[in-house]
Amino acid sequence: MAVARDIDDLPKNAANYTALTPLWFLERAATVHPTRTSLVHGSKTYTWHQTYQRCRRLASALSKRSIGLGKTVAIIAPNIPAIYEAHFGVPMSGAVLNTVNIRLNAPTIAFLLGHSSSDVVMVDQEFFTLVEEALKIMAEKSNGKFKTPLMIVIGDEIRDPKELKYALGTGAIEYDKFLETGDPEFAWQPPQDEWQSIALGYTSGTTASPKGVVLSHRGAYVMSLSGALIWGMNEGAVYLWTLPMFHCNGWCYTWSLAALCGTSICLRQVTAKAVYSAIAKYGVTNFCAAPVVLNTIVNAPPEDTILPLPHVVNVMTAGAAPPQAVLFAMSQKGFRVTHTYGLSETYGPSTVCAWKPEWNSLPPETQARLNARQGVRYIGSEVLDVIDTTTHKPVPADGKTVGEIVMRGNCVMKGYLKNPKANEETFANGWFHSGDLGVKHPDNYIEIKDRSKDIIISGGENISSVEVENVLYLHPAVLEASVVARPDERWGESPCAFITLKPGVDKSNEQKLAEDIMKFSRSKLPAYWVPKSVVFGPLPKTATGKIQKHILRAKAKEMGPVKKSRL
Amino acid sequence: MAVARDIDDLPKNAANYTALTPLWFLERAATVHPTRTSLVHGSKTYTWHQTYQRCRRLASALSKRSIGLGKTVAIIAPNIPAIYEAHFGVPMSGAVLNTVNIRLNAPTIAFLLGHSSSDVVMVDQEFFTLVEEALKIMAEKSNGKFKTPLMIVIGDEIRDPKELKYALGTGAIEYDKFLETGDPEFAWQPPQDEWQSIALGYTSGTTASPKGVVLSHRGAYVMSLSGALIWGMNEGAVYLWTLPMFHCNGWCYTWSLAALCGTSICLRQVTAKAVYSAIAKYGVTNFCAAPVVLNTIVNAPPEDTILPLPHVVNVMTAGAAPPQAVLFAMSQKGFRVTHTYGLSETYGPSTVCAWKPEWNSLPPETQARLNARQGVRYIGSEVLDVIDTTTHKPVPADGKTVGEIVMRGNCVMKGYLKNPKANEETFANGWFHSGDLGVKHPDNYIEIKDRSKDIIISGGENISSVEVENVLYLHPAVLEASVVARPDERWGESPCAFITLKPGVDKSNEQKLAEDIMKFSRSKLPAYWVPKSVVFGPLPKTATGKIQKHILRAKAKEMGPVKKSRL
Repeated sequence: MAVARDIDDLPKNAANYTALTPLWFLERAATVHPTRTSLVHGSKTYTWHQTYQRCRRLASALSKRSIGLGKTVAIIAPNIPAIYEAHFGVPMSGAVLNTVNIRLNAPTIAFLLGHSSSDVVMVDQEFFTLVEEALKIMAEKSNGKFKTPLMIVIGDEIRDPKELKYALGTGAIEYDKFLETGDPEFAWQPPQDEWQSIALGYTSGTTASPKGVVLSHRGAYVMSLSGALIWGMNEGAVYLWTLPMFHCNGWCYTWSLAALCGTSICLRQVTAKAVYSAIAKYGVTNFCAAPVVLNTIVNAPPEDTILPLPHVVNVMTAGAAPPQAVLFAMSQKGFRVTHTYGLSETYGPSTVCAWKPEWNSLPPETQARLNARQGVRYIGSEVLDVIDTTTHKPVPADGKTVGEIVMRGNCVMKGYLKNPKANEETFANGWFHSGDLGVKHPDNYIEIKDRSKDIIISGGENISSVEVENVLYLHPAVLEASVVARPDERWGESPCAFITLKPGVDKSNEQKLAEDIMKFSRSKLPAYWVPKSVVFGPLPKTATGKIQKHILRAKAKEMGPVKKSRL
Repeated sequence: MAVARDIDDLPKNAANYTALTPLWFLERAATVHPTRTSLVHGSKTYTWHQTYQRCRRLASALSKRSIGLGKTVAIIAPNIPAIYEAHFGVPMSGAVLNTVNIRLNAPTIAFLLGHSSSDVVMVDQEFFTLVEEALKIMAEKSNGKFKTPLMIVIGDEIRDPKELKYALGTGAIEYDKFLETGDPEFAWQPPQDEWQSIALGYTSGTTASPKGVVLSHRGAYVMSLSGALIWGMNEGAVYLWTLPMFHCNGWCYTWSLAALCGTSICLRQVTAKAVYSAIAKYGVTNFCAAPVVLNTIVNAPPEDTILPLPHVVNVMTAGAAPPQAVLFAMSQKGFRVTHTYGLSETYGPSTVCAWKPEWNSLPPETQARLNARQGVRYIGSEVLDVIDTTTHKPVPADGKTVGEIVMRGNCVMKGYLKNPKANEETFANGWFHSGDLGVKHPDNYIEIKDRSKDIIISGGENISSVEVENVLYLHPAVLEASVVARPDERWGESPCAFITLKPGVDKSNEQKLAEDIMKFSRSKLPAYWVPKSVVFGPLPKTATGKIQKHILRAKAKEMGPVKKSRL
């Protein structure tokens, strides 16, 4: 036992133990590449030296207003430099960054700002009146106890100056003026404890009441490095911000880019044309996008594209499982698509469909099918499994037996803010429960079959809405498809397909089109998997481009049950 | 304060907090790429599935012998698969791996095995008699209390079978037989605490009494990822083991390679021919080597090379500052050299001379000069500075003021084993003290001027032995050069150069050669920096190829002081 003590009894000290935090990456980037471009937004560019100074100014200005440890700073902004800076400046003050989805409505924003007790709200000028409305709701509900948060409005030359003028008229302080009150050489302190919270983000879309996902400095550090390694992202990467930074902190690439001393190209609005232009103009090497964005890129009119690509562009996609057809089309165009899967609760992606060189010789369709799977765990995520929902035992790796995808590791959130009940459920039995259903293939790659709530149960049999959608995407007229359960008199539920058609498709005879699509599905799916109802029109989406199935489910319910006679 | 508690009071749990350890990388590699080659040694190859099974067997077999937490397992082996396996199998049992330099003599090995209380010794058949001799010394000194450790001998088909036979005759168990006693599906446990020790390695060469450097799972994890990112090492890298694995655990690339699911090419003995052959045969993408090895590669006879290289080969070098001439020659041959600097105490390299694209357009000599600097901190190393040795304040970034290079971060060792006095000194004032002297350039890159003890003080003025060596390497006849202080009647000390000449150089008139070299030096250095003595012959080196200056210093002393009359 003396040996045990000798070899292990060397205590941590100031020289050999530092809290893990991505904040040091910024200091390093400014030291190593002070003159390299950190951020580009329209005609504005910043260097790493400037970004570090601006972030220290922000941290200093917040500190002067007593914003620090235990406080929360909300930001409501699209992909502009200020939200990138907030990812460093806010935690450098000790406070937690609450990134708010810009597509939310005022009552939801009111809920989030209240629930997170945000003392400061940084808001892009476009969204100022939205936040104003939210604050009004908060004031009304507070019985006179409401204390207006410090309002910081972020101006953007790209937008109408009237918006900014209006905001300043209400007493809000302009972001750049606020920075001027801070010290560019501010001696910020890293967290004492790496478990300290760095960011807060609310889940949206699929559930009624948003839950606040709390992330730690430690997790953000591990994820930043892991995300860079998994993607083979290089030092000096040029990254295009199509994925919103408010969404899981841009899958932690906000921080990875500082570690890699890379360059961020901001985009207020994502269009296929803007993506292709940025590739040509800035030499974009990497971007992340939801499958719907890939769909837009793939189906862009030729005049908006710059094909063939001047260099390989690495694309990471996650969210809803991307249809194989989209993956295939992307790779045909020369994009190298890395397919990942994760949740806000896992700092963004936590599995990757790691590409195998032996797949290179397979037919393209097979490649796309293999790559459409969710894959294996990230380097920074320690355990991944698919477990039986009743016995909690791992399912066999047979590619058939469906179970719940569960995880364990340093890239799982600290928990939901002020929500012990949800925490108890989500962390039951020492696992993080994703709520997604999937299978484990014989090669250890997992594949999602559905969200628990997206499974359609028809006559007691499970139907994977994802697989039905995969088939629909293969139909030449289909641009986007989403399949949900519709009540069914005979079978309990049956699949109902919501479809957006490609431009140029003759929409005059929807009945005929619907029949054609059903016929097409019948040739590729079990009979009871074929959608019994087909609805054409645009699909409701979240800010990050996820199709909002709960809205479609409500619509399908409103349509009433499928009659027995229809069989 | 209520807010502070809400946002931070989310406790760690089994799902969101796991001890950081590189051991999970192996499990991941075996899951993701079970059939990919993990190790190649001569005609033997292993897959990741096999390596994982063999490592679990090793951990299991050790556990069965009660080797686990608090115990130490020593290994004495060149770069063969068993030492790679030990990097996982030993810590998977909970024990600490003590990698022993194969070039040490029996008394030193006796000291190490005793000091580390190693209960098990794994030894390559070539070094069995050496260890036997060490054990005899230990037994003699123990007054009958000596307990022979469990001896495991590693056979190698490349070597003479008599060695193995002899070892087995003494009662040692063969490594492969030992593995057979273990369970290939052994349910190994990650460490409970990431601060737990993973490895132990003794410093060598420059000091009289070796110090045991203890490393943690946490540090090894951070370094493995950081080392891969710094080098831009890709998933599936093919790595040639020129750097000994016993040296700082191969700068943690033992573990990085599992994270990257890469392939290790083992080399028992490093020759220029073997390096070039491996590049051709296995498509080597990366290797690490001390500057002397680079020198050998650069000066290899044409028939041993495969120039021009079939693909870019990334070379990382560290140790003594590599002469600019060698860096230049390597890059001319198509090797991409990354220059790093570190110590055993920092898990291997902790600074890197990060290459800047703007250097690409500079003259090759300028590039080599810039790249010969030690550079900036690793991503995983939090603070790097150069401080005044008396005031402990950072020196100005003027490229001139010399101070001590100090560091702080998670890639600094836990401490020296059973050596509180050395720990106190090395961790004084919250810094890790490297003992190296350097400057900070205006671009924030540091450059070593010398080891504290290598500085030559002549007439009260400092002479950097490194800079004198840099000039000597530029002389066409010089293969290797090392400069130390020689006592000097007039100046206290003066530079004495030990030189190895290139093959083919006419060595018949050493006096003339020495004069020519001095004349050459005078054209490039201040007069008092020019070596007053020049000695030709082979240079004494450590196992890792570092020139042993303490031996040369002793030689210079033996030569007696430089006489006044010689001026």
